[in-house]
Amino acid sequence: MTPIPFQLLIDALGTGQHQPVVDAAQQFNAADLAEFIEQNIGNSAGNGLFQKLPMALRAKVLGYINSADQVTLTQATPLAELAELATEMPSDDRADFFNLLDESRQQLLIKLLGHQDREDLTSLLAFEEGTAGALMNTDYAMFESGISAGSAIDILRATATDKETIYQTYVVDEHHTLIGVVSLRRLIIAPPDTIIDSLIANGLVFAYTDTSQDGVARLITKYDLLALPVLNADNRLIGIITYDDAMDVIEEEATEDIHKGGSVSNLDNGINAASPFSLYRSRIQWLVILVFANIFTGAGIAHFEELIGAHLALLFFMPLLVASAGNAGAQSATLVVRGIATGDVVNRDWLKLFKKELVVASALGLTMAITVWTVGIFRTELAIATIVAITMVAVVLAGGLIGILLPLLLNRLGIDPAAASIPLITTIADVSGVLIYFTIATAILSP
Amino acid sequence: MTPIPFQLLIDALGTGQHQPVVDAAQQFNAADLAEFIEQNIGNSAGNGLFQKLPMALRAKVLGYINSADQVTLTQATPLAELAELATEMPSDDRADFFNLLDESRQQLLIKLLGHQDREDLTSLLAFEEGTAGALMNTDYAMFESGISAGSAIDILRATATDKETIYQTYVVDEHHTLIGVVSLRRLIIAPPDTIIDSLIANGLVFAYTDTSQDGVARLITKYDLLALPVLNADNRLIGIITYDDAMDVIEEEATEDIHKGGSVSNLDNGINAASPFSLYRSRIQWLVILVFANIFTGAGIAHFEELIGAHLALLFFMPLLVASAGNAGAQSATLVVRGIATGDVVNRDWLKLFKKELVVASALGLTMAITVWTVGIFRTELAIATIVAITMVAVVLAGGLIGILLPLLLNRLGIDPAAASIPLITTIADVSGVLIYFTIATAILSP
Repeated sequence: MTPIPFQLLIDALGTGQHQPVVDAAQQFNAADLAEFIEQNIGNSAGNGLFQKLPMALRAKVLGYINSADQVTLTQATPLAELAELATEMPSDDRADFFNLLDESRQQLLIKLLGHQDREDLTSLLAFEEGTAGALMNTDYAMFESGISAGSAIDILRATATDKETIYQTYVVDEHHTLIGVVSLRRLIIAPPDTIIDSLIANGLVFAYTDTSQDGVARLITKYDLLALPVLNADNRLIGIITYDDAMDVIEEEATEDIHKGGSVSNLDNGINAASPFSLYRSRIQWLVILVFANIFTGAGIAHFEELIGAHLALLFFMPLLVASAGNAGAQSATLVVRGIATGDVVNRDWLKLFKKELVVASALGLTMAITVWTVGIFRTELAIATIVAITMVAVVLAGGLIGILLPLLLNRLGIDPAAASIPLITTIADVSGVLIYFTIATAILSP
Repeated sequence: MTPIPFQLLIDALGTGQHQPVVDAAQQFNAADLAEFIEQNIGNSAGNGLFQKLPMALRAKVLGYINSADQVTLTQATPLAELAELATEMPSDDRADFFNLLDESRQQLLIKLLGHQDREDLTSLLAFEEGTAGALMNTDYAMFESGISAGSAIDILRATATDKETIYQTYVVDEHHTLIGVVSLRRLIIAPPDTIIDSLIANGLVFAYTDTSQDGVARLITKYDLLALPVLNADNRLIGIITYDDAMDVIEEEATEDIHKGGSVSNLDNGINAASPFSLYRSRIQWLVILVFANIFTGAGIAHFEELIGAHLALLFFMPLLVASAGNAGAQSATLVVRGIATGDVVNRDWLKLFKKELVVASALGLTMAITVWTVGIFRTELAIATIVAITMVAVVLAGGLIGILLPLLLNRLGIDPAAASIPLITTIADVSGVLIYFTIATAILSP
């Protein structure tokens, strides 16, 4: 990938004139213009470029800019100009942008929009964030059943600029109920007098307004859709969600899952954009819960205080045994949690996975027992090395099995299995590891 | 989402006849037929349905089926039929499928393919897995510079069925060098005598054959592309990658990152499909490395044996202090590693993130110190509760900062920052935790 030649823009901005900037901007992709503006949000170049773009392009570029910078860029924009900008935006971007404004500006702005735009906006704002309703776009191409392919194409030609996509068109009955989807590919190949209904694709796929954004992304990925139609409770078509929004959702959901895996919850932004307070809030909850959980591990150790006092050498091996239990558990939990998230693993797989882990964790435990026994005989007496080796097999097995079963149990109970974060699994494996270690040691060392 | 009415298929298969099955299959989406076949791979229904599908649909369905099941379904297929199937497949799916066959069948099959298909296949097989070359499809719509929009649409109409997509068309010069991309939307809106060159979109985006699949996915996501053109080293257009392949890559890369975060490396499949041996192999490496790393923690404890022997109560708090260091580190490492993966965090952010973590981890450490001091005074003497509280602030700070700096350091050194898995960070934080704890305890308790 070649670096983007932003110098062209910098030079044009340097002239201080309007037209050279507009001409230079024409040579860039909207996403690149957005990147330049984001990089220069602190200085005059960012805002300068944004204000000089023609309104339609400005609306397009704004859709690629992150929320915080959208606010910075438009806070000084007069209301009339803001209304013009909002009118040019796709309906989904417009609703997102509107949500960023303070309430007084929202009230004033909404009055300046055209009737149709105002209605669209009000209806989109009513949907809960994270649902299909909040993601969807209301600018879709729709035809009533019975129209010919030729007329459909003529209409598309005339209206294409206002539509989010014309590559999928939607056929509805007189009540606006969705009957089927026709691709532009089929429309264009068909003889012009073909009735559109005969071009409908097999197997209608759709979401309802309350379908989760994760569900939306799964449907679009599974069926390789360009766009997914969204229906209201009466099966009437009221919007579409395009593949690019699904890609953003997949990335967002992966980030959320990865964060949960590290016991970071409910963080809207990445670490770079997040405020110290929101980072604190997203981290403190699990840290405190895990402190209390670790008190059990401490209590486990305290319970064996006498044994430990008599054989302090046992302490040397404690961290590696306890950590191995946690690490094996972290691995199997990671595999199961991701498997559940991608749909690869379902609840009824539990016995199969349990048996497989029995095999895998035994093999892992044995390998590690041999390793640690070899280290042990150079470091301590044979009895302790043997205790450590036996314990290793037991704790890796215990950790591995906990990592398999806990996420599946949570999922079965309707709790997000990602709550079985690595730190939580590690903590549970820790306490099991301590108890197993000192129980085995007691059995072997006690007279 | 309503359940898919697979009973229709089961009933049709029950008749034992061909036509009812074909008729029933027409009502389903190819992805759903693939799902039905995968669910019934062990019994006669899966194979029965697959064999009865018309060849074009069979090829389409096969593209949605996982590799292992593709092998199962086609292992008894006669070569002539296999060649017919391969001919119907899109070029990228065909190359993937070909790679699954054993060498002797590959040799025989390739001879049965048409000249063009054979050339396409041979060239695609030459590219390294995980690159744009291995992902791309060679069935794109291309026009030489200078053609009119009307003629272009006429040609698209005639050839659309063979193309992966007709919604993006590519304009090349007489040497096949890519000049620009024209969307079907623009082609269709333009007056028919418009020269295609004037419809080219701003800002050409493309990949080379050796661009990584991760890079491909980033480009498609950033620019919201329907398809990304792929060039050879001479800037000649030789393929395209469509958005649906990018979605699969995003998901695949997220899975890889999540696995690495749990110290599971190089696993091609999910836990359900992976063999016990491949699971063992992907897990043992880090487990053994971490055992050796934990020996340092053990040595740390051994170093303070005398202190511990004199104050066994210190042991009770060891797990929660050491775990808190690891947990805080797991959180900050998770945030940084994901930030680097999504492009949110770059190396030059290190100082900013370090300072932010200083604030956040101090606040986290103080909250936890207060919590643990309150628990401590009920459980032990004031001196030890105070040692524990001071240690808590120090270890959370240490863990948090290690979690920020280690991934950035690895990235700076050109090592995948995801190698800073949670178990590794936890282990490093553990040893730091032990040393900090007993050093503080020695300072306060020693006479």
